[in-house]
Amino acid sequence: MKNQEIIAIREFLGSMPEPADRAELRQTYDNLGAIFPTAADVALESVSANGVPAEWATTPGAAPDRVVMYVHGGGYVIGSVKSHRHLVTELGRAAGTRTLSVDYRLAPEHPFPAAVDDALAAYRYLLAQGFVPGNIAIAGDSAGGGLTVATLLAIRDAGLEQPACAFCISPWIDLEATGNSITELADIDPMVSREGLAGMAAAYLGAASAKTPLASPLHAEYRDLAPLLIHVGAAETLLDDSIRLAGKAGAADVDVTLKVWPEMIHVWHFFHPMLETGRHAIAQGGEFIGKAMDDATKLKVA
Amino acid sequence: MKNQEIIAIREFLGSMPEPADRAELRQTYDNLGAIFPTAADVALESVSANGVPAEWATTPGAAPDRVVMYVHGGGYVIGSVKSHRHLVTELGRAAGTRTLSVDYRLAPEHPFPAAVDDALAAYRYLLAQGFVPGNIAIAGDSAGGGLTVATLLAIRDAGLEQPACAFCISPWIDLEATGNSITELADIDPMVSREGLAGMAAAYLGAASAKTPLASPLHAEYRDLAPLLIHVGAAETLLDDSIRLAGKAGAADVDVTLKVWPEMIHVWHFFHPMLETGRHAIAQGGEFIGKAMDDATKLKVA
Repeated sequence: MKNQEIIAIREFLGSMPEPADRAELRQTYDNLGAIFPTAADVALESVSANGVPAEWATTPGAAPDRVVMYVHGGGYVIGSVKSHRHLVTELGRAAGTRTLSVDYRLAPEHPFPAAVDDALAAYRYLLAQGFVPGNIAIAGDSAGGGLTVATLLAIRDAGLEQPACAFCISPWIDLEATGNSITELADIDPMVSREGLAGMAAAYLGAASAKTPLASPLHAEYRDLAPLLIHVGAAETLLDDSIRLAGKAGAADVDVTLKVWPEMIHVWHFFHPMLETGRHAIAQGGEFIGKAMDDATKLKVA
Repeated sequence: MKNQEIIAIREFLGSMPEPADRAELRQTYDNLGAIFPTAADVALESVSANGVPAEWATTPGAAPDRVVMYVHGGGYVIGSVKSHRHLVTELGRAAGTRTLSVDYRLAPEHPFPAAVDDALAAYRYLLAQGFVPGNIAIAGDSAGGGLTVATLLAIRDAGLEQPACAFCISPWIDLEATGNSITELADIDPMVSREGLAGMAAAYLGAASAKTPLASPLHAEYRDLAPLLIHVGAAETLLDDSIRLAGKAGAADVDVTLKVWPEMIHVWHFFHPMLETGRHAIAQGGEFIGKAMDDATKLKVA
C-alpha cells in the first residue's frame, strides 16, 4: 500500500470503539460530522419532501434549478442527513447544484420497501417543485448506492421520466452477498464483512425475498435507466457488486461508466477532509453530473 | 434501437460478401481504407521498429515527444496498419500525439507469442528512440485490445517501466470464450460469434494453452499495470471480456475506467467516418491518454 492517507484512515477506523447497540451505532455515525464538519458557506434548510424529512443545502454559485437528490448509506439501518452532510454538500458544490438529502425511514423499524417509497416520494416532490428531470441527479453510497438504482427502477415503473443521471458510490446491490469479492477481498476491507451485510440485509428485508429487484437491484431488468457513474474501491468486499452492476446495466443499453480506484476502501469519499483521493472522486462525480445535465438540456433544445 | 447510424452500419456489414478464404478476408479488411480514408493532413512514414514493420503517423499539432503505440484488431489473423490507419491516426489527433501502428506478425503463419514479442519489441524501440514511458500510451482493439493488456504484462515482466496508460477498445481477453455474453448477446452482435472466435483462437494459439496469460489475459496476475481505459459496446458478445477485465484488474489495484456504450457494436470506433458516437469514443480515448500523460509528467516533476 502506498497511499499514506488511506493507511491513516484505516488506523482511525481500527481505533473506533465497538458500539454497544444499534442506537449507539446510529449516534456514533451521526456524530462523525464533528470530525468531518460541513463547510461554513453551506446554507441548510429542513423540509418535508412529500412527507419525507429531507434537507436542502446550497453552496455559493449552485444553480438554483439543478439538484442532486442524495440517499445516504448505512446498510438501510443507520445513517442520516447528519452523518453524510459533509459529503452531500461537497458533491453539490462539485456538481454546481443544490442538494436534497433524504432522511428515508430506516430498518428494522421500517423494512423494505419503506426506503424505496420514501426516495420515490422525494423525487416526486422535486418534480412538483418544478425541477425538470434533466436537472435532477440521484446519488448515494453503499446501501444508498443500491437505493439509487432501486429508485431509478421505481421511477421508470411509475411511468415518470428518468433523471439526468445517477452516481453510485460503492453500491450494495446484492443483499445475498454472492459476489466473489465478499470472500476474496475480506482480508483487506476494514469496513464491510459478510456477517455485517447479513445482519443489515435481514433487518431491511423483513419478510421480503433477498432476490426482490427493488431490494437487490442485481436481479432487476435494467432497461431505460438514466446514465450511471459507478465508483468503487479496489479494497472493498463489495467490488463485485459494482462490476456486476456495470455488466447487467450495460448489457441492457444503459450508459455506464465504472471507475475502480486503487487502494480505496468502502465509500472513501466520506473521508474527503483527510483524503485527497476522496476529493478527486467527489470532483469527478460532480463533473459527471454537471455534464449529464448539460447533455440533457441540449437534447431538449435539439 | 434508436441510433440510425448504427442501423446503417449493420446494413453495410450485412451487405458485405462472404470472403472465399483467409487471403481474401485479409484483402477485404485492408481495402476498407478506401471506404474509410485517412485524413489528408496526416503524414505517414514506414519504419522498422526493432525489426518489426510499423508506421509512424503525425497530425498537425501532435506533440513530437508523445506517442500512442497501436496494435490493431483482427483476431490475430487479419488486419494491418493499412486496415486501421483511419482509426489510429484519428486517435492520435484526439490524444495530441504521434502514433506508431505496429504490423505485428499474424497467425496461423506466426502463432503465439509472435504478436506479443513484436509488440514488446516495438515498445523497446520507442524507449530506444528516447520516448519516456510517461509519454507513451498503448492502445488496441479486439484481439489488439487483448494484446494491449498482454503487452503491459510483458513490459512488467521484462522489468521495464509501464507506459502512461493503455486504452482497450472491445478487448478480447479470453480465448476460450467463456463469457456469458458470448451466448446471451449472440443475436444482436453482427460481427463476433463463438465460432469465429474459436477459429481465430485455434489459429493463434497453435500448441499453447488457451489459459496462457499472455494469450488470454483473463488468467493473468494484474498487478503494477498502467491505468486502463476500457470501451465496450452493449451489443457485443465480448461484453463480458471487458467486464471481467475491469473486475480482475481493478481488484489488483490497477486504475480502471470502463465505459459501456449503449447500442454500440464491436469496435464501433472503426466506423467513425459514418458514426458520431465513434467520433465521441475516439475523443474520449484521446482525452484519457492526454490526461494520463499530463499526470505522468506531474508525478515526475513532483
